[in-house]
Amino acid sequence: MIRRRNLLGAGLLGIGGAAASFGNPQKAADLAAPAISRNRRRLNMVTTWPKGLPGLGRAAERVSESILAMSEGLIEVKVYAAGELVPPFECFDAVANGSADMYHGAEYYWTAKSTAYPFFTAVPFGMTAQEIMGWIDFGGGQELWDELSAQFGIKAIQGANTGHQMGGWFRKEINSLDDLIGLQMRIPGQGGDVLRALGGSAKALPGGEIYQALQTGNIDATEWVGPWNDYSLGFYREAPYYYGPGFHEPGASLAVGVNLKVWESMTPGEQALIKAACQSVNHLSLGEFTYQNAVYLNILKDDHGVQLRSFPDDVVKAMAEAAADVRAASGRDGIEKRIYASFEAGLKTMREWAAVSDGPYYAARELGSSE
Amino acid sequence: MIRRRNLLGAGLLGIGGAAASFGNPQKAADLAAPAISRNRRRLNMVTTWPKGLPGLGRAAERVSESILAMSEGLIEVKVYAAGELVPPFECFDAVANGSADMYHGAEYYWTAKSTAYPFFTAVPFGMTAQEIMGWIDFGGGQELWDELSAQFGIKAIQGANTGHQMGGWFRKEINSLDDLIGLQMRIPGQGGDVLRALGGSAKALPGGEIYQALQTGNIDATEWVGPWNDYSLGFYREAPYYYGPGFHEPGASLAVGVNLKVWESMTPGEQALIKAACQSVNHLSLGEFTYQNAVYLNILKDDHGVQLRSFPDDVVKAMAEAAADVRAASGRDGIEKRIYASFEAGLKTMREWAAVSDGPYYAARELGSSE
Repeated sequence: MIRRRNLLGAGLLGIGGAAASFGNPQKAADLAAPAISRNRRRLNMVTTWPKGLPGLGRAAERVSESILAMSEGLIEVKVYAAGELVPPFECFDAVANGSADMYHGAEYYWTAKSTAYPFFTAVPFGMTAQEIMGWIDFGGGQELWDELSAQFGIKAIQGANTGHQMGGWFRKEINSLDDLIGLQMRIPGQGGDVLRALGGSAKALPGGEIYQALQTGNIDATEWVGPWNDYSLGFYREAPYYYGPGFHEPGASLAVGVNLKVWESMTPGEQALIKAACQSVNHLSLGEFTYQNAVYLNILKDDHGVQLRSFPDDVVKAMAEAAADVRAASGRDGIEKRIYASFEAGLKTMREWAAVSDGPYYAARELGSSE
Repeated sequence: MIRRRNLLGAGLLGIGGAAASFGNPQKAADLAAPAISRNRRRLNMVTTWPKGLPGLGRAAERVSESILAMSEGLIEVKVYAAGELVPPFECFDAVANGSADMYHGAEYYWTAKSTAYPFFTAVPFGMTAQEIMGWIDFGGGQELWDELSAQFGIKAIQGANTGHQMGGWFRKEINSLDDLIGLQMRIPGQGGDVLRALGGSAKALPGGEIYQALQTGNIDATEWVGPWNDYSLGFYREAPYYYGPGFHEPGASLAVGVNLKVWESMTPGEQALIKAACQSVNHLSLGEFTYQNAVYLNILKDDHGVQLRSFPDDVVKAMAEAAADVRAASGRDGIEKRIYASFEAGLKTMREWAAVSDGPYYAARELGSSE
């Protein structure tokens, strides 16, 4: 199963060039190892992340570094922070129309394109990190995602996961459903729809504008990611009550989107390399968020006196009911309906498994350690 | 950042050959892109898994397929099932002494080499899948693992994760600590040590011998992996009570071990490719176990009348106490002590994070759906 390399492809620059076929390698070897051309590729990747953002911005850079190293320099992916090449929420259009080759971002930013996109990031009371990995790769999710993305000329792949996201920072405690009425909170996506259904006012501010809004009283509360990312934005100085667990994003999956023509111009080997780079970064980021969130939770508690709180049971139940309605509203017709149905079926199945495995394990581990 | 390929390396067969340096690629490009030799490599990988074993055997094959595809056929890894080249528990020695290039297996099988090896697979009341990923990649685990493995001439990398493992199949219910006294159970590793500490008798039978031992009454109970793998071995026909959650392996990490001389003979690009292949398979396997365990849990409950049970609180607490002692006994001196200390520190930190995030999220999701 050996292929020869030659200099044919080495002189090609940019996208395109001869995409060599990758048939039966054994047969190819029998035929005296025909040459395969390896293209030089220079690709650009726009991202929805501010420059230097830990975890997410780093994930995009890691994808690029992994591709460069594995291709021994043949495939170079230049990463642009939000706004450097296009504004963050225009990444999708840039890749769709070919002015950028790839994006790294959150699929739920494209909800205006399709209400099904949030199912590929995170939805309220939805899947945890390892559950969404299971649904996308083994529960039919990727096939539906491919079908949806192809309508826009994009191929999408999982490329990072934040793990569990906290419920947010609140200036006042939430003791009942009444405390949500009129609450001004920065919370985007379906999580925002849940708050609206319960009488609150949801705003979708970009990360860089949240702190000032909180400081000036334009908002009463905000969610962002988890202890690691939240610490860097300093919310604990304005809103001392930190609510966990959160319910709006129980394991946010981030994505790499590739312009479909660029993707289809690649050899199967190049596609495999890019896919494995994204999956390896997904592996790394889930571990990194798990570890760093733990480290920064301690810093917030021990050094900054942050008060941890959890939502009362009746608030949780009301949020869960509203969340079920919000999810259903995202999948009424067409491919959106099929994606919603597939997601809900996967969620139902995996919820039963979690209820006899990780769920009670975490609880019992604390019971065991309280001795 | 472009490298040229040429035919120089393409004629080399087998391990070794000229390991080209991988310096500053920009500088290399400035110097008119000097040729880099790409070696053909044919490697063999011995595994501890029976032929065709879902999840674990498949993970080893996926590592091989990923490497082959990404290298466009240049790096071929031939995978051998347990016993095909060497018996399963001799994989470590085979790679250490160079008679095999790589293994795919569970590090706790090498406990006779070092009592610290279980910390890199799973220990009772220890880390879940995403926690051990966090510790190994970001909490100092990999550096200690490298130091330990180098003593045996091996470089080890995470290469699959089963997620949560169930507590096992029991012929009679466990209602109190008394029911563990004299219990004959198939449970290897530190989990077995915990059972012994509580008065039971732990046996370490290979997978292929468990069913008959259960059928003939040689054992009263057995654990194996989770619903997906357990279903295929048919334990439900002999022992109707299925206990979950389990505590002995809360997220078993499997490993790829590479002969250190082979590893060091590789270019940084080849090393990056093999590492990303392993990490991408780790990503895939965690999702696959999460999804398939959920599917097979339903099959066991709905089609085979399996009775789910959980251990009583006093049994859990006694197991947790014994587990803490067993873990400590594995790290008394030298590098074992440092690995134990690093693991426990990581566990303590991440346990606090789990206690405000995934742990209560799983519980609240059920509360929310019970309406």
